[in-house]
Amino acid sequence: MSLNIKTNTKHFTNPLYLESGRILEPYDITYETYGTLNEDKSNVVVICHALTGSHHAAGTYENENKIGWWDSFIGSGKAVDTDKYFVICTNVIGSCFGSTGPMSPKHPSHEPYRYKFPVVTIKDMVKAQRILFSELDIHKVHAIIGGSMGGMQALMFGIHYPDFASKIISMATTHATQAWAIAFNKVAQEAILKDPDFKQGYYDPQVIKESGLAGMAVGRMAGHISFLSQESMREKFGREYRLTDGLYELFGRFQVESYLEYNGYNFTKWFDPLSYLYITKAINIYDLSRGFDSLGEALKKIKSELHLLSFSNDQLFKNFEMKEISDALSEVGNTNHFYKDIQSDYGHDAFLVEVDKFKDYVSEALKN
Amino acid sequence: MSLNIKTNTKHFTNPLYLESGRILEPYDITYETYGTLNEDKSNVVVICHALTGSHHAAGTYENENKIGWWDSFIGSGKAVDTDKYFVICTNVIGSCFGSTGPMSPKHPSHEPYRYKFPVVTIKDMVKAQRILFSELDIHKVHAIIGGSMGGMQALMFGIHYPDFASKIISMATTHATQAWAIAFNKVAQEAILKDPDFKQGYYDPQVIKESGLAGMAVGRMAGHISFLSQESMREKFGREYRLTDGLYELFGRFQVESYLEYNGYNFTKWFDPLSYLYITKAINIYDLSRGFDSLGEALKKIKSELHLLSFSNDQLFKNFEMKEISDALSEVGNTNHFYKDIQSDYGHDAFLVEVDKFKDYVSEALKN
Repeated sequence: MSLNIKTNTKHFTNPLYLESGRILEPYDITYETYGTLNEDKSNVVVICHALTGSHHAAGTYENENKIGWWDSFIGSGKAVDTDKYFVICTNVIGSCFGSTGPMSPKHPSHEPYRYKFPVVTIKDMVKAQRILFSELDIHKVHAIIGGSMGGMQALMFGIHYPDFASKIISMATTHATQAWAIAFNKVAQEAILKDPDFKQGYYDPQVIKESGLAGMAVGRMAGHISFLSQESMREKFGREYRLTDGLYELFGRFQVESYLEYNGYNFTKWFDPLSYLYITKAINIYDLSRGFDSLGEALKKIKSELHLLSFSNDQLFKNFEMKEISDALSEVGNTNHFYKDIQSDYGHDAFLVEVDKFKDYVSEALKN
Repeated sequence: MSLNIKTNTKHFTNPLYLESGRILEPYDITYETYGTLNEDKSNVVVICHALTGSHHAAGTYENENKIGWWDSFIGSGKAVDTDKYFVICTNVIGSCFGSTGPMSPKHPSHEPYRYKFPVVTIKDMVKAQRILFSELDIHKVHAIIGGSMGGMQALMFGIHYPDFASKIISMATTHATQAWAIAFNKVAQEAILKDPDFKQGYYDPQVIKESGLAGMAVGRMAGHISFLSQESMREKFGREYRLTDGLYELFGRFQVESYLEYNGYNFTKWFDPLSYLYITKAINIYDLSRGFDSLGEALKKIKSELHLLSFSNDQLFKNFEMKEISDALSEVGNTNHFYKDIQSDYGHDAFLVEVDKFKDYVSEALKN
């Protein structure tokens, strides 16, 4: 069956009250759907994206060739089967693919917010999505699925909207961002902030798209290290030399250097530096227990059937961090959760790259 | 007994033939000694330093308070007992603490080499040290000890000067730098190269010492991530907030961010950017098997008693990389080596920080 991709942007004029006490008003949310909503609206699956993801999770648009970021996972006959489910993925607020973010015009001016954009949190991202779903007259969904920052959102949904999702599947994430992950974000943030071409936030986005932003490229390179593992890098790159300009030349490049350069500089063509700062901030301050006496108290709120999937060699969010969620749930008497550590040498990106290792688990978990 | 610190610089006018085919001429080597050379010169222990280390491995100079980088390990009554051994540590060529490096004057001019400095390798660093020892009339030593890049030198000594050391103790290192470690170096190199204040190598070192170099600070932050582990960062920093400027401020700082900032920017006051580029290059192209048919063929050359110590949670050079050396030695019939994986959550820096975990092993290994 056809994937039936539809992309849309909703405009909201009521204020969005943020966790910080500030408001966003007005704001837009861009989202994409796949498949068909059934009559009793019981077949909705929400997909939450990661740091640099977007609403474009599956398929390709007409006349374009950019495939959705989780296309191997979502589609006709795939783990999240669009023949059966009506799938929605929204671009988070703070991002740069249509939903309101730091480079959106600050009403009533036509000037971008830049640093005047409020700090948003994962809870805020989830709240905005919940409002969108109400607007779409969807008040209950079959499942919410996400990995990395998407997995944070999925858990946040479970705690703050306990009656919303029957099932939650959260992968490759944590209950509160740990120092190691904050450190990687710090390198990226510092590299962006100190790049003179960032112009202390007053850059021309068009210039950056065309000429790149070295600081953001450097930061993204650090990010890529955290997405892989020592083992997968060895497997992928080894000590292969990319250029034949001689072993002893100071700027000869190993394959891995070339990979980081390409991905680092290319990234600056399609992602906004201020969005990167705001979203990494949201990730750093993410903590499920905020507003509760403990993680256990927060997790007690969850009513959904919860599936926690970690990857054994995830270097960004260690598998024991997800195990801690499972342990905390058991401690507060939750008997409706499942924890599975998936054996993988790949590292954090396994949730995007090694779909084969968990697709059967997910399609089974999605069954009623 | 007194540590008997002596610091000296030897000037060499004969050319140093480098692995690249280029030469250094003339060149200086700065070194430091502790303890007293015995009559038959049988009590020499060579210490090799890591990336940003120096010849100042132990003790403090008069009227200064900077303690040597391995002071907990070397001294009177310590693991490397200076009451017993005559300890020598030399600053590697390419570095910036007295031995010839990229900011040294290029003879016969008084202008620094900068990019005209030749690429040096770990083998070159070792060769220069060997020449220094000959000059000091030392032709055989009791032991060579080093961690990280120091461990690379120790192994390189074993292969290329097989009759030189009775014992070699190499820790927290590898047989050939793997993609993960190269990737961390890449982030640092790129951050330095793209910083406009680096002026494509034509910076004023005094200005950098005073004002810092953001690119090098960012690179060093990435380095610090690789020196620790997820577990030790969690233990050390957790999610503690350093400043009380509010959880939701975009630039509020976690303890770990503050640590990285401090260490990153402070680093630019005491280390030279071009030395950083040259030494990380030397680390990247380090491969014991270069010039041999295989790692085993290289290791066959070793005659010294060899001790290999890895740290279980080293994220920069994984413990299995040292195990591979041990396995390759066994495969070529070497029966005079010992491999020990030291349990530690600390990460790579354990060789500097958790001396208590291996000091007894080392003092035992040093006994005849």
